[in-house]
Amino acid sequence: MNNGMIECSVCHSKLVSPASKTISRAYDRHKSRITSKQRVLNILLVGGDCMLVGFQPILVYMSKVDGKFNFSPISVNFLTEITKVFFAIVMLLIQARNQKVGEKPLLSISTLTQAARNNVLLAVPAFLYAINNYLKFVMQLYFNPATVKMLSNLKVLVIALLLKVVMKRKFSIIQWEALALLLIGISVNQLRSLPEGTTALGLPVTMGAYVYTFIFVTVPSMASVYNEYALKSQYDTSIYLQNLFLYGYGAMFNFLGIVVSAIVKGPSSFDILEGHSKATMLLIANNAAQGILSSFFFKYADTILKKYSSTVATIFTGIASAVLFGHKLTMNFLIGISIVFISMHQFFSPLAKVRDEQNGVLELPEVQDKQRCEIIAY
Amino acid sequence: MNNGMIECSVCHSKLVSPASKTISRAYDRHKSRITSKQRVLNILLVGGDCMLVGFQPILVYMSKVDGKFNFSPISVNFLTEITKVFFAIVMLLIQARNQKVGEKPLLSISTLTQAARNNVLLAVPAFLYAINNYLKFVMQLYFNPATVKMLSNLKVLVIALLLKVVMKRKFSIIQWEALALLLIGISVNQLRSLPEGTTALGLPVTMGAYVYTFIFVTVPSMASVYNEYALKSQYDTSIYLQNLFLYGYGAMFNFLGIVVSAIVKGPSSFDILEGHSKATMLLIANNAAQGILSSFFFKYADTILKKYSSTVATIFTGIASAVLFGHKLTMNFLIGISIVFISMHQFFSPLAKVRDEQNGVLELPEVQDKQRCEIIAY
Repeated sequence: MNNGMIECSVCHSKLVSPASKTISRAYDRHKSRITSKQRVLNILLVGGDCMLVGFQPILVYMSKVDGKFNFSPISVNFLTEITKVFFAIVMLLIQARNQKVGEKPLLSISTLTQAARNNVLLAVPAFLYAINNYLKFVMQLYFNPATVKMLSNLKVLVIALLLKVVMKRKFSIIQWEALALLLIGISVNQLRSLPEGTTALGLPVTMGAYVYTFIFVTVPSMASVYNEYALKSQYDTSIYLQNLFLYGYGAMFNFLGIVVSAIVKGPSSFDILEGHSKATMLLIANNAAQGILSSFFFKYADTILKKYSSTVATIFTGIASAVLFGHKLTMNFLIGISIVFISMHQFFSPLAKVRDEQNGVLELPEVQDKQRCEIIAY
Repeated sequence: MNNGMIECSVCHSKLVSPASKTISRAYDRHKSRITSKQRVLNILLVGGDCMLVGFQPILVYMSKVDGKFNFSPISVNFLTEITKVFFAIVMLLIQARNQKVGEKPLLSISTLTQAARNNVLLAVPAFLYAINNYLKFVMQLYFNPATVKMLSNLKVLVIALLLKVVMKRKFSIIQWEALALLLIGISVNQLRSLPEGTTALGLPVTMGAYVYTFIFVTVPSMASVYNEYALKSQYDTSIYLQNLFLYGYGAMFNFLGIVVSAIVKGPSSFDILEGHSKATMLLIANNAAQGILSSFFFKYADTILKKYSSTVATIFTGIASAVLFGHKLTMNFLIGISIVFISMHQFFSPLAKVRDEQNGVLELPEVQDKQRCEIIAY
């Protein structure tokens, strides 16, 4: 695949390769040879994600003291970022030690400064994440958890739209429908948990709430997609280095948050360790691990896979809790997961994809070919 | 398309045409040139079906006297068959009158006897329908209406299986999933209506009930598919003539039913007009019209379209009742119909179909073609 030109062996017409259409040569070169290694990685990613997401609710429950958090939300986020930065540094040192002779030194000033310049884009997702982590807690005050859950399902579609715009990803109509089905499947599963009071659409009604909802849905989606964009566009930079910057920015923004709230609520909110327990420490560790894992998702897989993975995670938690605590699996749950699995198959099935690639890459030749392949009855 | 041979203009390989794979040359010749006329017919079919199905529940409600039927179910079915026979005869007479000179006389003894011999197969669906019409009422005694509704959703899949076996229809994986989604969509819509008492799966538990369920689901599905088979396999016979036989057999079987119940319950059940009112007459007329319409579905469209059409009908009834009686549209309803519409698009979309035909018809050439069309990077 030199200078991204390819040739169709039917019509021998030179075409611009998909590579030149998308974000990073390096990434596409990597992508072009999807090895079984890649597949194994995906499985490890999803598997790990399932475990971490599965533990989340338990840890959140444990960190609550008589139903509320004693610590300031921002402090949790700040500590999480610090943990991630620490992890990134450790990994970088290990990487640097294991470098072969003659390799470009990983921690030389020149490398770092250049990487810093190239990856400055990571400030964008870091900032968006900082806002989102705060919003998460704010939303709880405006809507009941069930509604928040319902609303956050909409992210799937927003993410897809952003991927189309930012990453120039092409989705076939079947894949769009698959994403809609994912949204629907999750919603069906949550229907029962909707309190009686809520309106037919389970949505809040006040104008302000709508604005909050919009922000609550778009901000994290933009964060994920821009994160994927930033990580992949500098594909050759070590992911730990990229994480170091990402989390560095993250810690910075969260620290600013603390300063601001310190100014607003007084200096008390400065002691970021106030009201923390073993449980909250575990929660922070879990958050950190999830954050690190997702950066692997974004760089080596994509945001959609991340979404599906967290959905599968919640499904497994549901099944697990049914097995462990003998809950009865509701009709909603069973129907919900069947929709999710159909959606998953449709999204990742070659049927949908091939067509997708054809639409994306082989526009003209594909059409010609179709015509040529048409069967003439005579 | 002479003697069903076709040629691919790429590899110039002679192929057996899809026609010879399926049931009736005549039907395929008709199908091969799907005109806008055909499309208009489909719309009329679905439109008419929606109206009739829409009225059904109202008429059923009206025919009940303090919540139960005063007349014997079989009598309704018998009268319905009679009505349909009457309609068929009238239409035949009209057709015969409008025949051009030189055309093979429609009502000559020879034509009738030959048609009767060719269409003897129609006795099968007629018999199955007779059983089913009776089962419908019986089921009401064993399950609550909501459960019956739920169970009857399973017909979609059974019908698809039978079409595959009997009519050699080929469905792509996407189409199978679309049918599963149709089933799911309808179920989601009905979830709310499920009474609290029912088990997690909303299914009855006694062994006997399972047997009844199995019969209740398979018999009508077999009836529809065999009806489609019988009508299409004698495509050249006038549909009114075919209906005359179908309903003739139907009346016969229902009459036998009345005789049997007369023997069991005594002669009282012989006066088939007992306990009937204007409402029941309208109900019978509606049933008859639905029966006649479905024979058009089976001959000129297919059973799946019929299924989708009745689903769309129930959706419109739901919306109508919401508009007329100011019911609030539930979340279940909204989610349910979005699933149904996605399913519909996926089932009828060329994306799913083309692939399907390729699998079915062009096995080898398609594969070769795929290989040829592969892009070699160099």
